[in-house]
Amino acid sequence: MKIVLIGAGNVGYHLGLRLYELNIEIVQVYSRTIERAQFLADLVQAKSCVDLSKLDKTADLYIIAVHDGVIGSVAEQLQFLDTEKRLVVHTSGATPSTVLQPFFRRYGVFYPLQSFSILRPIDFSQVPICVDAVADKDQLFLQALATKLSTKVYEINDKERAILHVAAVFVNNFTNHLLYISESILERENISFDILKPLLQETIAKIEDHSAKDMQTGPAIRGDQATLDRHLVYLEGFPDYRMIYSLLSKAITVEHRKHT
Amino acid sequence: MKIVLIGAGNVGYHLGLRLYELNIEIVQVYSRTIERAQFLADLVQAKSCVDLSKLDKTADLYIIAVHDGVIGSVAEQLQFLDTEKRLVVHTSGATPSTVLQPFFRRYGVFYPLQSFSILRPIDFSQVPICVDAVADKDQLFLQALATKLSTKVYEINDKERAILHVAAVFVNNFTNHLLYISESILERENISFDILKPLLQETIAKIEDHSAKDMQTGPAIRGDQATLDRHLVYLEGFPDYRMIYSLLSKAITVEHRKHT
Repeated sequence: MKIVLIGAGNVGYHLGLRLYELNIEIVQVYSRTIERAQFLADLVQAKSCVDLSKLDKTADLYIIAVHDGVIGSVAEQLQFLDTEKRLVVHTSGATPSTVLQPFFRRYGVFYPLQSFSILRPIDFSQVPICVDAVADKDQLFLQALATKLSTKVYEINDKERAILHVAAVFVNNFTNHLLYISESILERENISFDILKPLLQETIAKIEDHSAKDMQTGPAIRGDQATLDRHLVYLEGFPDYRMIYSLLSKAITVEHRKHT
Repeated sequence: MKIVLIGAGNVGYHLGLRLYELNIEIVQVYSRTIERAQFLADLVQAKSCVDLSKLDKTADLYIIAVHDGVIGSVAEQLQFLDTEKRLVVHTSGATPSTVLQPFFRRYGVFYPLQSFSILRPIDFSQVPICVDAVADKDQLFLQALATKLSTKVYEINDKERAILHVAAVFVNNFTNHLLYISESILERENISFDILKPLLQETIAKIEDHSAKDMQTGPAIRGDQATLDRHLVYLEGFPDYRMIYSLLSKAITVEHRKHT
């Protein structure tokens, strides 16, 4: 199997390293800048490329791991590929597979559902990979490849992946923002966020064995209006955080009433 | 040292077990119901008690581990104690120490900052304990006790503890609600929340070494309006979640602009 990797950002980097680790041949790494392309190409013993028209035309799989906004235009520049023989996938959770449809016969998605950063190593064997393809044989091919890379492989169609992506925003982006708010509040008072880390770890550890629905605690679900009021008074110094506090407390109260 | 433990709920339970584990004598466990009091008393080889007026009057430390709303009334019923000799503390993050002031000379707070549940074992040595007392000698006494129970001991006054408690609500209660939302969205589409667990773990793992401020990712901070719009359309089926999505996305955008 020969793979061309298009994109050397956070996803391309970790995907490339994992493929290389498993002795799966990457023939070329494309990036817009030669520095980026060369950096990853060297790591995975591939050739670098900065011109999409000069991509190797004989690979089995082309993996487009670029920002959502440019997947379409990259795909357009790859339509010279003979996709009776070549399979093209993108790695995005937010973009439907159909963005590739105008340009290729055989296309699909190979979406590693994780928040990647070049700065942080990751155990790729634990990264869920969501695969999807139009043709059954391509679906099987992607599944087989994903199973080499990770123990967690899921067949996920466009609609399901879109929903997963919304849910992932709540789990990752929004949770991170709450942690940011918490850090900011403490920072102003010179209190170390470290004091809250065991609580954060336990919050997440609980979700391993329990539904978040059953783990809700705090003043909102207890209907402890005195504490809610005290917190809102304190947050007068942080009007943006106060609004988030109000909305989430109200949401918890409403959900709780639904279930009781 | 002799301790009377008032309250056999989640905090009283874990605190009691930890004291017992360290061979610190608990003479009595009070709870409103005999079943609760007896259950914990048996575990820690103490006497049970359901009548506050019959509490042992000779202990060194009285720990009030009851709901915030009833700390004051419990304290009022303990004013027969000779608190030249007896120290009284509560375990709450949300209630100031001064709630005890009308009733005792020597009082303070012994606040284990964790989300406890009788159903879940906890490594108490890793639970941050925030201590505070009016008198220096009591402060030292509480610190020494806390240091036996945990490796993480902090001197935290009323004002700081109030702020910590607000921050803890963001870290624990609100994060849990976001996870609940994520579960709900996936549940409606019969997708397992397990797919998102590695992402959740990584979201938290990043915060061990980095500030949440630097770890923000996602469509809002990227200014990826196409993805934001697609998510909002999907969330039309969940109006409450949609409002939270909008507010948090806007908040992330605003914070980002502040820093760039």
